Amino acid sequence: MEFPDSMRAAVLVKQSYPLQIEHVQLPEKLNYGQVLVKVHYSGICGSQIGEIDGIKGNDPFLPHLLGHEGSGEVLAVGPCVRRIKSGDKVVMHWRKGSGIDSPLPEYQWNGKKLNAGFVTTFNEYAVVSENRVTVIPENFPMDIAPLFGCAVTTGLGVINNNAKLKIGESIVVFGAGGVGLNVIQGAAMVSAHPIIAVDIYDNRLEKAAQFGATHLINSRKEDVRASVLKITGKTGADAVIDNTGDTDVINLGYELTSVNGRTILVGVPAKGDNISIYSLPLHFEKNISGSHGGEANPSIDIPNYIRLYQNGKLNLDHLITDRFTLGEINIAMDKMRSGKITGRCLIKM
Amino acid sequence: MEFPDSMRAAVLVKQSYPLQIEHVQLPEKLNYGQVLVKVHYSGICGSQIGEIDGIKGNDPFLPHLLGHEGSGEVLAVGPCVRRIKSGDKVVMHWRKGSGIDSPLPEYQWNGKKLNAGFVTTFNEYAVVSENRVTVIPENFPMDIAPLFGCAVTTGLGVINNNAKLKIGESIVVFGAGGVGLNVIQGAAMVSAHPIIAVDIYDNRLEKAAQFGATHLINSRKEDVRASVLKITGKTGADAVIDNTGDTDVINLGYELTSVNGRTILVGVPAKGDNISIYSLPLHFEKNISGSHGGEANPSIDIPNYIRLYQNGKLNLDHLITDRFTLGEINIAMDKMRSGKITGRCLIKM
Repeated sequence: MEFPDSMRAAVLVKQSYPLQIEHVQLPEKLNYGQVLVKVHYSGICGSQIGEIDGIKGNDPFLPHLLGHEGSGEVLAVGPCVRRIKSGDKVVMHWRKGSGIDSPLPEYQWNGKKLNAGFVTTFNEYAVVSENRVTVIPENFPMDIAPLFGCAVTTGLGVINNNAKLKIGESIVVFGAGGVGLNVIQGAAMVSAHPIIAVDIYDNRLEKAAQFGATHLINSRKEDVRASVLKITGKTGADAVIDNTGDTDVINLGYELTSVNGRTILVGVPAKGDNISIYSLPLHFEKNISGSHGGEANPSIDIPNYIRLYQNGKLNLDHLITDRFTLGEINIAMDKMRSGKITGRCLIKM
Repeated sequence: MEFPDSMRAAVLVKQSYPLQIEHVQLPEKLNYGQVLVKVHYSGICGSQIGEIDGIKGNDPFLPHLLGHEGSGEVLAVGPCVRRIKSGDKVVMHWRKGSGIDSPLPEYQWNGKKLNAGFVTTFNEYAVVSENRVTVIPENFPMDIAPLFGCAVTTGLGVINNNAKLKIGESIVVFGAGGVGLNVIQGAAMVSAHPIIAVDIYDNRLEKAAQFGATHLINSRKEDVRASVLKITGKTGADAVIDNTGDTDVINLGYELTSVNGRTILVGVPAKGDNISIYSLPLHFEKNISGSHGGEANPSIDIPNYIRLYQNGKLNLDHLITDRFTLGEINIAMDKMRSGKITGRCLIKM
C-alpha cells in the first residue's frame, strides 16, 4: 500500500465545540521511531470528552487531533523501528510499552502545523510512536482490539497494579462506563466479593451486573453511604475506585474505604475542584492514590489479555455497545454525555 | 459441658514409627490466653508426614502431639481471652492471627510432661493459643472448616501474598496435593493462564483439572522442561510454585521461571539436601523465595474465604476425598504416602 498524503480526521479546534471533520496532510516521511498505521477502529474514552470540554484547564495545543485507543494495520515504519513491521496488525495505546519514544508527528492543516500526541486515533491514518503500538495476532478481530488501548488495560490494571486486589477482598466501583466495567470485570476475575457498582444510570448498572458486580446502587435513588455500609459492614470496603472525577463522589468513596483500604482515583476532577478528606487515617494503613492508566504495561499486558480473550476468560464482546463512523463522531460524543452508552463506543474509520 | 480431664490423642513417640493412640491428661486449668476446644475434625497436612519422618532433622520435642488444622467448639477460655467465648465454633490454624500468644499447653502422658505446640489437632480436645483460633459462623459445616486451618489459607495465600499473581500471568504448580490444589484454585480465581499442574500421579492431575489447571503434565511420563516450554514459550512462566520439597524439582522449577518471574517454595527439602541454581538472574528481576504458610493472616483471610464459599466462589466440597477416625490415623498416613489420596484427608474425632 502506498504512503497516503492526506486523510480525513476529527480536529478539536475550539474548546466545548463539536469536533470538525477536516482534510489533514500527513508528513512526507516518517521520523526516527515512528510507525504509520491505517486506522481501522477507534474507541472513545471519557477523557476525550474531558479534552473537548477542557476540564484540565486552558488547552495550549489547539487545534489538535485526538483519540487514544485504536486498531489498525501498519503501512510503513520509520528509521530504527525494530519491533514493528509493515503489514502488522496492531493496537494503538496511550501508555508507553517497549520500543522507541519517537518525536511527535508533524501533520498540517490549511497549510499550518496541526498538533497531535504520540498516538491519535480519530483519524484515518496515524503516525504513532513505536512504543504506543503493540502487535496482535493476524486474525484477531479488529473491532475488539481497540479495547486494549485503554478501557481494558486501564480497568484490569487498576485491579492488578493500583488496588492489588486479593482473593476475597471487597470493592466499591463508582461509575460503570468503559473503564468502570473493566474494573468490575477485573474484580470478578480475581474473586473479590462483594463487588458493589454505583452509578446514576440503571442501564449501566445492569451492564455492571453482567460484568460481575454482585450489588448495584443507583445513587440517584438510594443513600449510597447507608447502602454500601449495609453490604460491607461498618468497616467499609477494602478498595474504592472512582471513575467519575466528581469530588463529592471521591470524598464519599474515601469515607467508605476501610481503615486499611485503598481509595483509587481514575476519574479526574475539573481544575480547581478539590477533594476534601480527613487525613488522619492516612498515617495508619489507609491510602489514597491516583491511577495512571492502571499503570498498564501494554507490551506485557496486551498479549496476556489477548490470550485470556482467546481462551474465553475475558468478556469483551459485550463491552462494545455502540458503533459510529468518523462522520458521526459528534453524535457519538453527545450520546456519551447523555449516559445512554452503556459500554464502549467504537468509531469505524 | 464440663472440663474434661483426659482424652484420646495420637502421639508421635519415635521418628518414622506409626503414631500411638494414647490416653493423655489435660491440664487442670487454662493459662493466660488459652482456649479449650473440643475438636470435631482435623485435616492432615504433608508436613505431618515430614514431622513423623523427621525431615527437618533430629526432633528434640519427642514425644509430642501434632496436627495443625482443625475445627471444633470452644468449651472454656483462659484469663484475658476476649476474642473467643465458650460455645463458639472455631477453626484452629497454625499461622498467627489476632489475639494473645499464650504459653504452651501442659499435657501429661504416663505421669510425664507431653510436648505440644500452640495448636494440635490429632487429639479429642485441644488447649490452643487464642491467636490460633478463629470464630466461624454457627452453622458452618464443621468438616469443611479445618481446610481453613492450612490447605486453603496457604494455597490462596501463595497466590495472594507470595506470587502476587496478576490477571493473565502464567503459572506452573509442582505437586497437586491439598495445598497444591488450592494454589491451582487460587491461580484460576485470579484469572491466570496457562495454569500448568505437574505431578507424578494421574489421579491427582485429574483433580488438578477440576480445580482449574489448564494443562497437566505427568512428570513420570513426559519431559517436564520440554512440555512446560512448549506451553509457555521459551521465556518460561511468571510464577513457579513447588509443593514437593524435592530439590531436583525446585532446580527445574527455577529454570522454568521467566527472567522476571518468581520461584516460590512451599515444600521443604530434607535437611542437608540443597538446591542448586544459577544466581545471575537474581541480580535482575528473577526472584526465589520461601512461603511461610502463604503469609496468611487467618483473622482476615478466613472470614473472607468463608464469604466466598458461602457465595459459591470457592470449591471446598471436592477437596475432601478421604475420611478416617482417630483410631485409623496411621492408615490415613500410609494412604497419603502412597499418593492414593487425591485431595485432603479428614480425621473425625
